[in-house]
Amino acid sequence: MNTQRNSGLGRTPGSRRAALRQLLQKKKGLCIMEAHSPLSALLIEKAAFNANGETRHFDGFWSSSLTDSTLRGKPDTELVHMHHRFDAINEIFDVTTLPLIFDGDTGGQAEHLIHHVREAENLGISAMIIEDKTGLKKNSLFGNEVPQTQASIEEFSAKIRAAKAAQVTPEFMLIARIESLILEAGMDDALARAFSYADAGADGIMIHSRLKSPDEILEFARRFRERYPRIPLVCVPTSFNDITFDELVAGGFNIVIYANHMLRASYPAMQAILPDILQYGRTLEVEDRCMSIKEILDLIPGTR
Amino acid sequence: MNTQRNSGLGRTPGSRRAALRQLLQKKKGLCIMEAHSPLSALLIEKAAFNANGETRHFDGFWSSSLTDSTLRGKPDTELVHMHHRFDAINEIFDVTTLPLIFDGDTGGQAEHLIHHVREAENLGISAMIIEDKTGLKKNSLFGNEVPQTQASIEEFSAKIRAAKAAQVTPEFMLIARIESLILEAGMDDALARAFSYADAGADGIMIHSRLKSPDEILEFARRFRERYPRIPLVCVPTSFNDITFDELVAGGFNIVIYANHMLRASYPAMQAILPDILQYGRTLEVEDRCMSIKEILDLIPGTR
Amino acid sequence: MNTQRNSGLGRTPGSRRAALRQLLQKKKGLCIMEAHSPLSALLIEKAAFNANGETRHFDGFWSSSLTDSTLRGKPDTELVHMHHRFDAINEIFDVTTLPLIFDGDTGGQAEHLIHHVREAENLGISAMIIEDKTGLKKNSLFGNEVPQTQASIEEFSAKIRAAKAAQVTPEFMLIARIESLILEAGMDDALARAFSYADAGADGIMIHSRLKSPDEILEFARRFRERYPRIPLVCVPTSFNDITFDELVAGGFNIVIYANHMLRASYPAMQAILPDILQYGRTLEVEDRCMSIKEILDLIPGTR
Amino acid sequence: MNTQRNSGLGRTPGSRRAALRQLLQKKKGLCIMEAHSPLSALLIEKAAFNANGETRHFDGFWSSSLTDSTLRGKPDTELVHMHHRFDAINEIFDVTTLPLIFDGDTGGQAEHLIHHVREAENLGISAMIIEDKTGLKKNSLFGNEVPQTQASIEEFSAKIRAAKAAQVTPEFMLIARIESLILEAGMDDALARAFSYADAGADGIMIHSRLKSPDEILEFARRFRERYPRIPLVCVPTSFNDITFDELVAGGFNIVIYANHMLRASYPAMQAILPDILQYGRTLEVEDRCMSIKEILDLIPGTR
Repeated sequence: MNTQRNSGLGRTPGSRRAALRQLLQKKKGLCIMEAHSPLSALLIEKAAFNANGETRHFDGFWSSSLTDSTLRGKPDTELVHMHHRFDAINEIFDVTTLPLIFDGDTGGQAEHLIHHVREAENLGISAMIIEDKTGLKKNSLFGNEVPQTQASIEEFSAKIRAAKAAQVTPEFMLIARIESLILEAGMDDALARAFSYADAGADGIMIHSRLKSPDEILEFARRFRERYPRIPLVCVPTSFNDITFDELVAGGFNIVIYANHMLRASYPAMQAILPDILQYGRTLEVEDRCMSIKEILDLIPGTR
Repeated sequence: MNTQRNSGLGRTPGSRRAALRQLLQKKKGLCIMEAHSPLSALLIEKAAFNANGETRHFDGFWSSSLTDSTLRGKPDTELVHMHHRFDAINEIFDVTTLPLIFDGDTGGQAEHLIHHVREAENLGISAMIIEDKTGLKKNSLFGNEVPQTQASIEEFSAKIRAAKAAQVTPEFMLIARIESLILEAGMDDALARAFSYADAGADGIMIHSRLKSPDEILEFARRFRERYPRIPLVCVPTSFNDITFDELVAGGFNIVIYANHMLRASYPAMQAILPDILQYGRTLEVEDRCMSIKEILDLIPGTR
Repeated sequence: MNTQRNSGLGRTPGSRRAALRQLLQKKKGLCIMEAHSPLSALLIEKAAFNANGETRHFDGFWSSSLTDSTLRGKPDTELVHMHHRFDAINEIFDVTTLPLIFDGDTGGQAEHLIHHVREAENLGISAMIIEDKTGLKKNSLFGNEVPQTQASIEEFSAKIRAAKAAQVTPEFMLIARIESLILEAGMDDALARAFSYADAGADGIMIHSRLKSPDEILEFARRFRERYPRIPLVCVPTSFNDITFDELVAGGFNIVIYANHMLRASYPAMQAILPDILQYGRTLEVEDRCMSIKEILDLIPGTR
Repeated sequence: MNTQRNSGLGRTPGSRRAALRQLLQKKKGLCIMEAHSPLSALLIEKAAFNANGETRHFDGFWSSSLTDSTLRGKPDTELVHMHHRFDAINEIFDVTTLPLIFDGDTGGQAEHLIHHVREAENLGISAMIIEDKTGLKKNSLFGNEVPQTQASIEEFSAKIRAAKAAQVTPEFMLIARIESLILEAGMDDALARAFSYADAGADGIMIHSRLKSPDEILEFARRFRERYPRIPLVCVPTSFNDITFDELVAGGFNIVIYANHMLRASYPAMQAILPDILQYGRTLEVEDRCMSIKEILDLIPGTR
């Protein structure tokens, strides 16, 4: 019988939930990677790069509503319910140890959100990010072709307060995501919202942007830091992907999220082998692009 | 609002379930590809190769217990319960139309299997393959390091009869998988089992082999066909991957399953981007290996 | 091994889905009973009353959002997601044969509803009732203490059209529930909505009332029937519970739903034994109020 | 918006899991009641009886495989998988605070059990009871009509050791249930097993009996206590239901489980209203046996 112990299996919901705040205390910047399946999460947990005698790792997982939806072949409109996503995260937690930040979309109705916050805590999720949109949610990266509406400051601040009041553990974090730059409402609006959300109890602020340049989010960070030197700032460099992690941390960000690359990397690899198998009528020609069966033995404890 | 109609959404459990038998009537050989997620299934459903004015497609999906377990970071020992796998298949069926063959491992206890057969039918699964092993299941591809026991012919034939008696739709297929060649019990044992299982009501026979050469499964097919010219024969050319689909069909096989390549292709692609992101501190260097965000718009109906 | 066959296990999603329309063709009025668990559904399916040489049975199940929520200890505000309720219905379908009408609350956003309609069809649900409220849903029976808003006729008609366009089987029914009488918007508003919803494609109309007297719903039925003699009319006599099934059918109703009595009957029975067990320190005094263990043997096939 | 706080919602998996050991430290005997749904669990949590100025409550919940199966209309043969039962328990935990003991049947294969133990811990379950049977499980209360086999002492002790080695929290309890008296293997066999299972690491011993008299389990407790004065002893007085809680505690038992009465009480109450509704064609005659709709408002926080 296998009694080999994956270190991840020793992590309880309580210790995992607390791990994000502990890491924020210890490190200036955290590097978070999108995971959409236990397999992708295992790869992230084991990934390492050695540079100058130092080994770099990822600090945690990002559960993205975009990749969770795309994996299921569904539109990213909050159609895939949080409960389905929580079930999938539970399976990730079965075999890993890193903390996880959850993409909560708009958070839904406040009366529902207060229940989901407690469910997220019980599962061991460390933080939930909710965005200040209203109406049918569409992914920010798809631009403004679909008209999107931003919630009023008062309305969204009330949602933050309700969620924070519902929370039962001290370590769970609710992070407010500001869509003002995406919706071209301007920097002042973004900052006014950030201040108000922080005052309402948000444990962190995420500023989003669709520009190729990081200038506007760096300006946001500089001006936000003048008033709030400590509240964690979060960015997601999907559009502005030439700025480095170290530069973002130097610019005032505490959490950098690579939000969808694991799913996006798996896609062309799967897509490419299919016409080849159809052409040659066998898999011989694609085998060198596939994990060997033997590798599974090393990856999954208890398989041998 | 999106009213665009994915053709798959028009498929009911009843019409999908019946589709495999209909295809077996129409075509000499069916080409089946492993799908472990709605996204991988969508790719398979859309894949095509044009040769000599003819377009080749895949005919259906294979739900593999090996890739379902590996995706979840769990050993392939029937730990991931059929119900969890059925839930995942339900999500695949939400967005696709092709029929699906289910890898049922040993089928579990006959008293449980009769319920699972009905659940599989209700879901719209077309066929379940069960293998004649007993005790804690280990994947055949991992060799004989872990001692495996084969069920007796009587015991396994009784399981087939129980499952067939439980079935309520005429089109559902129960396929018996023979492990005699894997366990080195010899060709005569394999054939004796095949005849007995067919007599017990199996709707198809799958013969498995770990050899690099297809000779033994071709011999099996030839000798089986002498007695049973019509019962569908299934093979899974994972080890003997230089023989082509057309050669296998010429050799007497009706269903050829490429059993795990989609998951195995996604793995190295995801694995490779991680150290690069850690090294460069950004995703710029891996973007060309990732699906563009825009591609999601074309893939998922209702996303735009 | 148990090979005994519960008749319910022979029902496929397709045949069950179609059964409601077939019954509506055959019978003038259908009597539908709330079921919140497989056990309660089994009891309903087996219940019978003999009168004058004729045996009366229930014709189908009602899946109530009120009892589904209450069973889970959650408020009836669409917090319990349709997917959770579908999973529970799937378990009911595993062991029964009668058709089921699903209480779909407001139906949620139209962009989500079109997916849920297809999921309901695939499961074998025969009909979904959606109500013309908007905003956070509160149960109608709780009165108007919580302000509730009715959707505009145009908005709700559009939702009906979207749902009907999404449907893939001919037999699935979408029934529109009108809250005008509950919200005191008047009979003319109720009728105007009924006509508009019928024109938008609704396969039936449910009229709801909180009055102790059935007069207003009977007036509604009479006036609706002047224009639409055939479209099925549905009522839920929870408040006006002295009018009989036969009188409602004579008044023009085709489907009468007893919407929550199974859960409401189970509650005081469970509640009553607890203080007795605490008082006597044993179960002896409550045994005669409990099903005997032997009865389970008769109820559940395969238990013996 | 409802901001009312049910005390149960403040309970985390960690604090709930630990609560059973804490109660065992504080109290001589714990009184545990079967719960099969959040509603039944809410009733148990609120139940009280006042006697001589003292208020008696239940100390925790029992999740029974018999009632979980019967509720689903399925035979009690481990067909309903632990994962399905865990999902249901998760919903109970959403709205309650008491600790829960889980009926783990045989525990299944040791290679699977080690995973299920960790899942149970993560959920917040305090204890799992596994019984020393082997082969297809049948409920002990149904007698010996179905031949049942007991696992060997060595085999079951190995299973206990594997489960205890897998456990990651100090407070989770694995309790060994002995079937020797049920299977008429004699008192000496029961005691030899109890000693061996305790030595293998079991955190408690449950002794089961089908006799109408408690004599044999009291003899067992007396003789077990001679060697192990401290290890918690568990009994389930289903057959011998005239002995009181206080007498069982005086006899050496620490945990008394009323194993199935909530479901058994709900059954005749639901069953009885059905022919009446069919006879009278309305619910008027059964209303006084039903919870009033208004009571739901008091029961469920956030409903009003």
